[in-house]
Amino acid sequence: MDIGFLGMGRMGRPMARNIARAGYDVTVWNRSPGKAASVVDSGASEAPDLSAVLHKSVVVSSLADDRAFADSVLSTSSLRAAKHGSVHVNLATVSPGMSAEAEAALNEKGVSYVAAPVFGRPEVAEAGELTVVAAGDAGAIDEVAPLFDVIGRRTWRVGDDAKQANTVKILGNYLIANAIQAMAEATTVAEKVGGSPELLMEVMNDSLFPGRVYGGYGKMISQRRYEPAGFRLALGLKDVRLALSQAREAQLGLPFGSVLEDLFLDALAHGQADQDWCSITEATRRRAGLAGE
Amino acid sequence: MDIGFLGMGRMGRPMARNIARAGYDVTVWNRSPGKAASVVDSGASEAPDLSAVLHKSVVVSSLADDRAFADSVLSTSSLRAAKHGSVHVNLATVSPGMSAEAEAALNEKGVSYVAAPVFGRPEVAEAGELTVVAAGDAGAIDEVAPLFDVIGRRTWRVGDDAKQANTVKILGNYLIANAIQAMAEATTVAEKVGGSPELLMEVMNDSLFPGRVYGGYGKMISQRRYEPAGFRLALGLKDVRLALSQAREAQLGLPFGSVLEDLFLDALAHGQADQDWCSITEATRRRAGLAGE
Amino acid sequence: MDIGFLGMGRMGRPMARNIARAGYDVTVWNRSPGKAASVVDSGASEAPDLSAVLHKSVVVSSLADDRAFADSVLSTSSLRAAKHGSVHVNLATVSPGMSAEAEAALNEKGVSYVAAPVFGRPEVAEAGELTVVAAGDAGAIDEVAPLFDVIGRRTWRVGDDAKQANTVKILGNYLIANAIQAMAEATTVAEKVGGSPELLMEVMNDSLFPGRVYGGYGKMISQRRYEPAGFRLALGLKDVRLALSQAREAQLGLPFGSVLEDLFLDALAHGQADQDWCSITEATRRRAGLAGE
Amino acid sequence: MDIGFLGMGRMGRPMARNIARAGYDVTVWNRSPGKAASVVDSGASEAPDLSAVLHKSVVVSSLADDRAFADSVLSTSSLRAAKHGSVHVNLATVSPGMSAEAEAALNEKGVSYVAAPVFGRPEVAEAGELTVVAAGDAGAIDEVAPLFDVIGRRTWRVGDDAKQANTVKILGNYLIANAIQAMAEATTVAEKVGGSPELLMEVMNDSLFPGRVYGGYGKMISQRRYEPAGFRLALGLKDVRLALSQAREAQLGLPFGSVLEDLFLDALAHGQADQDWCSITEATRRRAGLAGE
Repeated sequence: MDIGFLGMGRMGRPMARNIARAGYDVTVWNRSPGKAASVVDSGASEAPDLSAVLHKSVVVSSLADDRAFADSVLSTSSLRAAKHGSVHVNLATVSPGMSAEAEAALNEKGVSYVAAPVFGRPEVAEAGELTVVAAGDAGAIDEVAPLFDVIGRRTWRVGDDAKQANTVKILGNYLIANAIQAMAEATTVAEKVGGSPELLMEVMNDSLFPGRVYGGYGKMISQRRYEPAGFRLALGLKDVRLALSQAREAQLGLPFGSVLEDLFLDALAHGQADQDWCSITEATRRRAGLAGE
Repeated sequence: MDIGFLGMGRMGRPMARNIARAGYDVTVWNRSPGKAASVVDSGASEAPDLSAVLHKSVVVSSLADDRAFADSVLSTSSLRAAKHGSVHVNLATVSPGMSAEAEAALNEKGVSYVAAPVFGRPEVAEAGELTVVAAGDAGAIDEVAPLFDVIGRRTWRVGDDAKQANTVKILGNYLIANAIQAMAEATTVAEKVGGSPELLMEVMNDSLFPGRVYGGYGKMISQRRYEPAGFRLALGLKDVRLALSQAREAQLGLPFGSVLEDLFLDALAHGQADQDWCSITEATRRRAGLAGE
Repeated sequence: MDIGFLGMGRMGRPMARNIARAGYDVTVWNRSPGKAASVVDSGASEAPDLSAVLHKSVVVSSLADDRAFADSVLSTSSLRAAKHGSVHVNLATVSPGMSAEAEAALNEKGVSYVAAPVFGRPEVAEAGELTVVAAGDAGAIDEVAPLFDVIGRRTWRVGDDAKQANTVKILGNYLIANAIQAMAEATTVAEKVGGSPELLMEVMNDSLFPGRVYGGYGKMISQRRYEPAGFRLALGLKDVRLALSQAREAQLGLPFGSVLEDLFLDALAHGQADQDWCSITEATRRRAGLAGE
Repeated sequence: MDIGFLGMGRMGRPMARNIARAGYDVTVWNRSPGKAASVVDSGASEAPDLSAVLHKSVVVSSLADDRAFADSVLSTSSLRAAKHGSVHVNLATVSPGMSAEAEAALNEKGVSYVAAPVFGRPEVAEAGELTVVAAGDAGAIDEVAPLFDVIGRRTWRVGDDAKQANTVKILGNYLIANAIQAMAEATTVAEKVGGSPELLMEVMNDSLFPGRVYGGYGKMISQRRYEPAGFRLALGLKDVRLALSQAREAQLGLPFGSVLEDLFLDALAHGQADQDWCSITEATRRRAGLAGE
């Protein structure tokens, strides 16, 4: 398998390194230069230009957002460079709509499209322990499945409609946002009645809610430690709105989702755009007259 | 340690059995007769009447609710029967207010009060793997700590104010209710956009949200299987309201909590009081025009 | 008609004066002395004690709240003093539950009970232009209808179940609270986009929303003038909760009502209990990061 | 004044008739033919084509929505036909964004733009009793003020930024939507506790809430009469969203507005798009388990 890899960001680099170390022939490219060194050290080669990567039989991308993906992969020149019969694997968190658009545009050029967003932070990517959620053409997924085994601990296949993988990813983030607000409320009650928010979240993580979401955010929320941001609040609102807009287009109101949107707006209006998204906690605290940080 | 044990319900029986099997001298009592057989088989003896149990140096109770507890433990005759210098351990989920009242009334009789609600279902109690959250007089907790080691995998001590243990328990249930509604919304979005709610919840439980809450309720919600009820919806509303009333008395609004109260009312108005509380899911579905069961 | 009148407060005095001036024989009483002078000047006489008023064939009360009413009218001694065959007219805003209780207790003593809460401020009472909402025994209402014609511009009869009149009054206040929040949101949008909140509310009051509610509160809200309080915020919350509790007991969630409760709590937590209830406006403004007064 | 009038809809016709009857020289045009007869009978003449109207020194438009307005007035050919030094008066309810765009485009052609949305239904337009809210170039408003006196009972001037007039109109509709939901909740409480929703709304309209909004919608809501639609629910949601999107862009959450959006979605999901917008009442009723129509 001759692999091109686009995007040398915080997630792209460790995933590309793992693929190169597993012995695959990997050619990498990043829009801004100087990011690929550690990947080249792991055995990859760097492409002279974008089209050199797009010619490969398997192209993997890990780009920042819808716009970066569309610019690099779906522009007229990029679509012209794409190789008939190849497979494009999109590991990034893009919107379901973008994924559907990519699937249509690439299929028209004879390219199979696989949406494969991942769950896990950079350190999990480093360890090759990501969870991969894949959807798209079944034969194409079979073909690239060995790559998923390299970067992840497990691959979930959710059908042949590519955008469903992105929906799962967005709903995952939506569930995290909901858990954050639930913890914000519980810890604020604890504080108000004279209990210990930190101890509360430790007990919860030890008993009812194991895992990193309640563990990590529970600690940040109960200690009110919102910087440095693991995931910026402004981006968090974008993801919550992706869930909301999918729902609203389907004439489905989300009772918690509408409340979340207002809480995020409250946080933005108080200058928290660059804090971690779990700092929406402060909106609930402010409303109760609790002093700011 | 000479132990009296009140309450042979679905949780009380396995806890009492484990204590008896561990070699303690246990005398049990239950208001309605014929429930103690399996506990007696494990080595306990059955008391002729309530006061025989209340005379013990350590009295453990696991009673259904505030009222059952107050009737059995705080009535004038029961308080008279209580032994000066003894310890009362309340394993049940009672309200923080009830716990505070019990602490005052028992202390006045020279009895120490320990609130020690537990996390875990009957099968977890059977396995001696409960999580115990204890608060109250520190010396009394030290004294009964060996019993907690018998019934649980871990004991969390949250201070010397008894009602704080009950607050932790109630906030735990509050977090579960929030998680249920979050899952209700995410699975309904998935359904509306043509995805698989079941697969979504499997992926979530495998990646972001390990553990029994997201695992068990995720399955029930995505399969819309609400009977038999593990926890009745009407009781769920009672617990959500305990969290809300604590918050409201402290002039703290709970954005999600207020929404939850309305969703539970919607469910009650549709005859779901005896279904599992995760059936509040149907309120969100009905509002989107999705057909009932 | 021989009339006893209890309660010489801001509403009671002008109503009693108007009845005395209309030529009725009125005996008044107030718990704390020195309030009745202006009513006596209008031709009323002052009773030596409460029971002298309760002996009359028509007793009219205008007392502060549920408790003041129950203390003065429903105590054992007051019920003993009540005259068989008499009519009690309660002009105050009490809860529907209190009204139902009074109806039962008085009927048992052979006294007819008419709930007749009024709409209008003290100056409207002074002018004899109140709106009276009456419910209770039809014959009793017929009997006291001439009094309603003296104090009001119009009497609405809403049936023979006394508490229904109180429900109408509470729902009237509930509608005002909703209008206040609607105006709070509209004026804050206007402010945020560079328009004039005051002009907005003037246009509205001149076109879509004539009348004193939108006129008076529209001015206070758009000018953010919350003192002196016409109706204290803490009392406003009490009335909103009367509507909410009636609804919730009937398994009816109030989408706006639940939001209102949280906004009132927010205001209380920010020390606004003694401001006019339309100052809940500040909660919406604070959430948008707008500076306080 | 030589007037061109675009749009012979339910509002445009009576307004154009009144202007013609007042002695002005009016030339009318409508995209689909056969609508202008009654206006021609009142003394207007019909234009052979759109550009004949756009050449006039004062052009008045009353078109269905943003799109109809942009197509007829802001297309390249229409802008070319516009007369330098003329005034365009837009009587329709368009979005503030559309108004700002029109102002810029017309000004560039030397045309003054006046946004002048009106409050009132067709019968009010017929009577020349509309309320006009005007914003834009002050000199231009002075020039066309006599026309506003013909069609309306009063003109409110809200500054020289055209879009502010549209914002006032949208916030007016927003206030109506809020009043509708408030009435929906109050009447449903009344019904649930055995009172009369109709009588409640009559009392309210007679006392606290005079005017057509509470009068008309109060009657429709309490009688649950939603057809024929005076204002379609789907259009109502569009207007509520115009208010919400203005607010959200300004980082202002609208607590009631977010709830309204969900209630409208609920109604849409239940097939109510073509009912009157006050039928969102049914969402609250359904949630309480009350039987449908």
